[in-house]
Amino acid sequence: MAVRLQPPDPREIHPVPGVDLGFAEAGIKKANRRDTMLMRLAPGSVVAGVFTQNSFAAAPVQVCRAHLAAQLETSAGIRALVVNAGNANCGTGDEGVAAARRTCDAVARLVGCDGAQVLPFSTGVILEPLPVAKLEAALPAAFASLSADRWADAASAIMTTDTVPKAASRRVDVAGTTITVSGIAKGVGMLQPNMATMLAYVATDAAIEQAALQALVKSVADRSFNRVTVDGDTSTNDSFVLIATGRSGMTPLAGERDAGFAIVRDAIVEVAQQLAQAIARDGEGATKFIVIDVGGGRDEAECVRVARSIGNSPLVKTALFASDPNLGRLLMAIGNAQVEQLDTSRLSIHLAAADDVVLVVDGGQRAPSYREEDGARVMKPDEIAIRVDLGRGDAKTTVWTCDFSYDYVKINAEYRT
Amino acid sequence: MAVRLQPPDPREIHPVPGVDLGFAEAGIKKANRRDTMLMRLAPGSVVAGVFTQNSFAAAPVQVCRAHLAAQLETSAGIRALVVNAGNANCGTGDEGVAAARRTCDAVARLVGCDGAQVLPFSTGVILEPLPVAKLEAALPAAFASLSADRWADAASAIMTTDTVPKAASRRVDVAGTTITVSGIAKGVGMLQPNMATMLAYVATDAAIEQAALQALVKSVADRSFNRVTVDGDTSTNDSFVLIATGRSGMTPLAGERDAGFAIVRDAIVEVAQQLAQAIARDGEGATKFIVIDVGGGRDEAECVRVARSIGNSPLVKTALFASDPNLGRLLMAIGNAQVEQLDTSRLSIHLAAADDVVLVVDGGQRAPSYREEDGARVMKPDEIAIRVDLGRGDAKTTVWTCDFSYDYVKINAEYRT
Repeated sequence: MAVRLQPPDPREIHPVPGVDLGFAEAGIKKANRRDTMLMRLAPGSVVAGVFTQNSFAAAPVQVCRAHLAAQLETSAGIRALVVNAGNANCGTGDEGVAAARRTCDAVARLVGCDGAQVLPFSTGVILEPLPVAKLEAALPAAFASLSADRWADAASAIMTTDTVPKAASRRVDVAGTTITVSGIAKGVGMLQPNMATMLAYVATDAAIEQAALQALVKSVADRSFNRVTVDGDTSTNDSFVLIATGRSGMTPLAGERDAGFAIVRDAIVEVAQQLAQAIARDGEGATKFIVIDVGGGRDEAECVRVARSIGNSPLVKTALFASDPNLGRLLMAIGNAQVEQLDTSRLSIHLAAADDVVLVVDGGQRAPSYREEDGARVMKPDEIAIRVDLGRGDAKTTVWTCDFSYDYVKINAEYRT
Repeated sequence: MAVRLQPPDPREIHPVPGVDLGFAEAGIKKANRRDTMLMRLAPGSVVAGVFTQNSFAAAPVQVCRAHLAAQLETSAGIRALVVNAGNANCGTGDEGVAAARRTCDAVARLVGCDGAQVLPFSTGVILEPLPVAKLEAALPAAFASLSADRWADAASAIMTTDTVPKAASRRVDVAGTTITVSGIAKGVGMLQPNMATMLAYVATDAAIEQAALQALVKSVADRSFNRVTVDGDTSTNDSFVLIATGRSGMTPLAGERDAGFAIVRDAIVEVAQQLAQAIARDGEGATKFIVIDVGGGRDEAECVRVARSIGNSPLVKTALFASDPNLGRLLMAIGNAQVEQLDTSRLSIHLAAADDVVLVVDGGQRAPSYREEDGARVMKPDEIAIRVDLGRGDAKTTVWTCDFSYDYVKINAEYRT
């Protein structure tokens, strides 16, 4: 059902010097499925991450946070990431944390580092104990298969309910040095994701200092994964990790003032946005990809609230599925966004598909020029933009989402059966 | 699809002295449909209301607010309510407000009062001009049909996507005087309703002073309509009006300290709760009625956040539709409720159907005693309770909701076609 989303061409997902990828079939939930991924990082790699805000942060998320905090205190950086599908290791108490640590220790023995230099990730069913022995048994095979050019395979290995693997890659030139940025993702959201946990990993061989990378991972997430919504729910395991191996040999970038930082940052943002859009395109049951642009706000936060209120409204999403230009539902969703003192008489809305742009609401009312057949036509395609102008400032934002179909209900009513 | 919801028996919805009801077919959206209701109140009736928080409050809501505020300044109380289905008169600008006022004036000429003593209500399609001439033309017929014993008919006249009319009634004894409370409602929610606007009217012949009634309408809404959620969306037209005609001849009640106030208040709350539950039972596409009890909170507000997060989660609601004891989704929804410093290790969850009560989560983990077959059994019936204990205080709340089925998508994807 994915909307105009193709599997990545392995030749277009460039290896990142300093990153090797390996796989195994651990049989965590199903046999004969590649459900375990190992990512080994060259010594000296710098790593930063952002994680779910859910109170039930899964055991691996807790361990990731601890290991990332610990590496800031020592010179021993992160050396490996290990990801399993089939079990989320969430709602599993102290035993779950112990299982995640045990997984890290097993990886550490293979890679030759300390357990605290490994980040664990899990996705799958919640409230079931992680079969850590199966995972441990499979890790040597994953280690033996480590290779630099398997990003497309990595994108496949971390899938759960995804229908298409998600990978993106860019190469940019920084003062004569070619810098690569490659990334993979799975799932359907970040701040607003589906239970199908979102995991995303973006690596570059640029050299970026720890503090700059910490700031960058947050700002990149805010411009990519945090702008996706499928159903407004937030998983317990969501994680986005940014890795800078430094293997390009460039002088480490400390921030915006450094020449070249903007080039690297923009390439990372582009890769992350492509992955984030792929998540919305592959939203469960999605038949349409929707771009929601909200402008004219007093600040970005209120633009985000309006865009999310539209993107999360089941009534708007079912109307989009039906290609129904139900303008009333758009007004309703905007009106529910808790924008203080919104003067609705200054609000306008356009619907657009490619170059076909229709003014539908003007001054808070149906535009005099609007004809129902224009609305029906512009709602037909499988890629639609909703453009809202709040008419009260210069702030703006963009959120990507999908529609809400029979198949969303089908997929989620039958997920465990 | 309504879950165990029967049309009201007209003999059980008692007339309220001081209230007369009349109807007409105005042909606002469809011909030959009773789409207009007139409620005439005896002089001296006291009226208070609560309305949608949506920024796009419809024209009739704006006029209701103005007329209710105006009556506080004068001795001329509200004398009539007029409700039309088929058109919401929302997103219609100044013309919409003028149309609502014109409707009030037409009613006032019939009833013999000022236009400001009439409250207008509209439900139906948004962003379309109200065909006010049709409404005016139909009002004399509605006036001519006024009668005290047509509450059940009134419940039918205000329906839009409702499948069952909703009415409730109680009689209580206050110091030897029989007091009647009767109410009708339509739609699917209040703070969290479906686009099918919620309208509710509860009248009593008790005498209640204006200030006490103002406070009461808010507290009743908080214990009834504000505890219903269908899909988390909020309509532009939601209104709940409480009427005290005083025709029982009792001494007006000024508040909690007056003997008899608690008896009347409890009867009003019971009627409002029965109507609110009927709204959830008739939720669009509902196949199950769900009671969400959240206790052990530090304050009621956090209990409400948790209950709403569960009740609004599409993932929880599709699992309920599938009778799937997907405990992970419950944990996810609770974890997303932004309860500060929630100690998940103190959380417990029971699922219950009638006397069958199953402990499913204990100490934030799957209960050791839990067996999948117990979960499957307790999820089967069409009335299910989810009981969450946050383990951090004494506050509690209850929210009523329904599941999320294929028919929800069907109804909302095809609403306008």
